[in-house]
Amino acid sequence: MYTFTDKGDNEITLVPEQTPTRARLIQKRKDLKTPVKWFNTSKRWRYEDVTQGRDREFLQTDFDIFGVESVNADAEAIAAAATIYQKLGLEDRVKFLVNDRRLLESILESHGIEHTEQAMKVVDDKEKMDKAEFVEDLQDRGLSESEAVQVDKLTSISGPILENIEELREKSPKEAQQSVDRLESLGKALDAYGVADMCRFDLSIVRGLAYYTGLVFEAFDSEGELRALFGGGRYDNLVGQYGSREVPAVGFAFGYSTTVELLKKTGKYPLKEAETDVYMLTVSESLRDLAIEYAEDLRNEGLSVETDLAGRGFGSQLGYADSIDADKVVILGENDLQNDEVTLKDMDSGKETKVDKDEIIEVLAEGR
Amino acid sequence: MYTFTDKGDNEITLVPEQTPTRARLIQKRKDLKTPVKWFNTSKRWRYEDVTQGRDREFLQTDFDIFGVESVNADAEAIAAAATIYQKLGLEDRVKFLVNDRRLLESILESHGIEHTEQAMKVVDDKEKMDKAEFVEDLQDRGLSESEAVQVDKLTSISGPILENIEELREKSPKEAQQSVDRLESLGKALDAYGVADMCRFDLSIVRGLAYYTGLVFEAFDSEGELRALFGGGRYDNLVGQYGSREVPAVGFAFGYSTTVELLKKTGKYPLKEAETDVYMLTVSESLRDLAIEYAEDLRNEGLSVETDLAGRGFGSQLGYADSIDADKVVILGENDLQNDEVTLKDMDSGKETKVDKDEIIEVLAEGR
Repeated sequence: MYTFTDKGDNEITLVPEQTPTRARLIQKRKDLKTPVKWFNTSKRWRYEDVTQGRDREFLQTDFDIFGVESVNADAEAIAAAATIYQKLGLEDRVKFLVNDRRLLESILESHGIEHTEQAMKVVDDKEKMDKAEFVEDLQDRGLSESEAVQVDKLTSISGPILENIEELREKSPKEAQQSVDRLESLGKALDAYGVADMCRFDLSIVRGLAYYTGLVFEAFDSEGELRALFGGGRYDNLVGQYGSREVPAVGFAFGYSTTVELLKKTGKYPLKEAETDVYMLTVSESLRDLAIEYAEDLRNEGLSVETDLAGRGFGSQLGYADSIDADKVVILGENDLQNDEVTLKDMDSGKETKVDKDEIIEVLAEGR
Repeated sequence: MYTFTDKGDNEITLVPEQTPTRARLIQKRKDLKTPVKWFNTSKRWRYEDVTQGRDREFLQTDFDIFGVESVNADAEAIAAAATIYQKLGLEDRVKFLVNDRRLLESILESHGIEHTEQAMKVVDDKEKMDKAEFVEDLQDRGLSESEAVQVDKLTSISGPILENIEELREKSPKEAQQSVDRLESLGKALDAYGVADMCRFDLSIVRGLAYYTGLVFEAFDSEGELRALFGGGRYDNLVGQYGSREVPAVGFAFGYSTTVELLKKTGKYPLKEAETDVYMLTVSESLRDLAIEYAEDLRNEGLSVETDLAGRGFGSQLGYADSIDADKVVILGENDLQNDEVTLKDMDSGKETKVDKDEIIEVLAEGR
């Protein structure tokens, strides 16, 4: 946490990660109908060493579903996250790695691995190590060499969820069959949400945070250049720590810096350039009030409209309209107006047409 | 400013008011085409005494137009501010008080008031005083009693801009006639923008900030219960202080807390309640994947859709749909589906109709 003492000797903490705060709130708000779906975007602060893509000040969105134990909420959380990347045009570049911690634990235990908890801590860092390091690290934590090799083999199961279900079922002990069934349901639901192609099962995903109780998932740049985009999971016990009610929960926290880096890398940033639909050109300053009225009408139709603010001449206004990429220019001139007309210039083709002055708003609003 | 020393002995200032920062930026960015219109919303911090509607942490929007000396930019800035209040449904409740500081100064000087600068400081607080206090305060600043009374009288000119122009013209010295003309143009332009009814001229508006050079304006709750909603004005010299280029500017800064208070007072807060267009009810869990597919199709059409996440029964789902104010419920049942149908229930009327299962998306998307 980023804490300090201010000039008035007040102990201040800048807004930290929100999950515990939110869990406390949900515990208190017994009036809320479950499922409670919640999202919130704001800046947060942490006092940690600064690394690339990890600053002390960061913008983050939290998304959570409270009050549902069922796998349906897991699927909806992952689908929501995946939809964000679909809408950003990154669906081919972002992969979700999905696991169930209880399943991993059961499989390790059933294969006679002692020190399961120690082993899972090492598995959490598996992606950063080669096989020799991984095995050695496990032995340092008290596993025998053969156990370590087996953990490496067992945690190598990965791929499309439904394609790996049978292998998982075979390798899982009886008491874990329910977790396998749950994963299978998850795979089917992700298919129904249209996001199964973005998700892979990976038995080596653990996620450090102690509060996760089952499902865990992480989003990665599929070309592997950047650190994880974000992660999430199921945390059924956290709300219960702040009071008498147990409220199951699943969610994820979505940091912006890595996603923005990925958008830049793929040429999709900024998401939206400033756009000008219409520039309202006035041949003389006396027509300015009419230009404003037209502009206001068009703005009320949702168009982005600019007018001359500086009393510039014809050529200067046309040059400005071009420089701000206006799609259309409406030329208000005395002569045209005496004929109840205005001139509409299409800036792409350069083509000019005369339009009845009472129809220009409609023509432009329809031509969007 | 809110400054402190953090744990790493770094001198930190939390984001302060942005106007000087922005002026510095505009000075540097010689590549930007003028007019530059800019707005930015973020949290800011100041270390000041906390009063009602004035916290140390506050959310603010800045809006500025750089590079235009003309009154047209003044009108556009005020119109933008007024449009915000129109869109919030507060146009009958919010008034803009408008003045030109140069005009006030000229009028005072031409009426033989010495200590003009001192007098303007007192005028800035006029609204908070009765007449006796005002006159006394002016005398404390070195004005004679008759001068003080005259300042009171002169600064009492207020009302619709165009209706007061002639009185202003008469009371203004020759060198200030240009400022009166400018005010007249402003009044006409505000009329063209459709916001003249929200604006009043008030010769007593000064605004404390030293950087304002001409136009100043403040927005008030017209029933006078709250402190100023926000203020703004023209500051033509600020950008020039940070480099060689002079860049005229006009803008306003818009704090949220007072506006939110006003929205609450007028029963318009929150601006938007959570809405559910459709609840997708599944008679059996086996239909859940179909429900998801329908839900995703409808969400892609921009509708807000909820499904059963918890495996609840028919009645419980219907009760939940009611509790979240769903407009429509689509009931997916095995029997209906064997006839290629689903049931569409309108939650207001309670009326149920059978709809072809391939047409339900279209029916709902059109019926928004």
